[in-house]
Amino acid sequence: MAHLTASVEYGIHCLLWLVAKDGKPISCSDLAELQGVSPSFLAKIFPKLEKAGIVRASEGVRGGYLLAQPADEISFLNIVDAIEGKKPLFDCQEIRGRCALFGGQSPVWVSAGTCAIHAVMLQAEQAMRERLASQSLGSVHRRFIRKAPEDFVSEVAGWIEGRLKGRDSKARKLTRDAPS
Amino acid sequence: MAHLTASVEYGIHCLLWLVAKDGKPISCSDLAELQGVSPSFLAKIFPKLEKAGIVRASEGVRGGYLLAQPADEISFLNIVDAIEGKKPLFDCQEIRGRCALFGGQSPVWVSAGTCAIHAVMLQAEQAMRERLASQSLGSVHRRFIRKAPEDFVSEVAGWIEGRLKGRDSKARKLTRDAPS
Repeated sequence: MAHLTASVEYGIHCLLWLVAKDGKPISCSDLAELQGVSPSFLAKIFPKLEKAGIVRASEGVRGGYLLAQPADEISFLNIVDAIEGKKPLFDCQEIRGRCALFGGQSPVWVSAGTCAIHAVMLQAEQAMRERLASQSLGSVHRRFIRKAPEDFVSEVAGWIEGRLKGRDSKARKLTRDAPS
Repeated sequence: MAHLTASVEYGIHCLLWLVAKDGKPISCSDLAELQGVSPSFLAKIFPKLEKAGIVRASEGVRGGYLLAQPADEISFLNIVDAIEGKKPLFDCQEIRGRCALFGGQSPVWVSAGTCAIHAVMLQAEQAMRERLASQSLGSVHRRFIRKAPEDFVSEVAGWIEGRLKGRDSKARKLTRDAPS
């Protein structure tokens, strides 16, 4: 198992589709079908992204989620923290104060400053966080798009438009059939 | 909960005592009592450190564990990998190939090269690992010792020696009382 959960992977993939959709909302169920993943799993990730101000919800038949900020201003660190909740690399339990020689009352010098082990872990965590902060959703999207054939983005847009049209006609039918 | 488990914290604290003991073995139960932690918990960590070549076991009444390498050659990365098992930051499940448009057969361009999301995660992981690799057990031990009063190390050595003497006399008594 990895340190970061699969929710981070699914979340970032979804956000890349929102960049591609260029300001138009996509529903959670369309994102799930488009990527072949569980809709209920995605439905747990989006409220976290919304709470962190990364996406916002749009209501209505053509509603769904859209980015709440420009893609170049959303870093990988923002996304990881939104989904994983600023999980630290290391949780220092201050074992240094428990030495049997202190008889339950550790002297002041023991807990002065950050524990030397914790300090190393904090540096390693900082290095990781800086690297995640240096990469934006926008830059990774551009890297992906450079690799894809020219018509891929329009094909995906067409697929989503097809789903929306299906939903439009279903909504019209419901309005027509509603008891007056 | 943190990314790294409490086993890493306990493991490093134990190893720092082995540096302080300067080439003489300390038993798992003495290390546990010295630090006020569970002996059964430590007993699960030491076989991992031994397998990774960080410590080696010494048999006999005064036996226990001792460092298998100079403390300056044991990095924090060595210890973390020994205990956590080279756990990756991110586990790429190649979601990029599952797009509904590919109908179960993703084109070659999709999976060419490393996934752009995974590449960012690998860079962040590398930054963290480099920082952990740059710090040795020896350097952190020197930092700790600078902070401690001059007589602290000798007091700890005395405490351990007391435990060993107790074990020596118990062993002598057992030999005396053994049926001939």
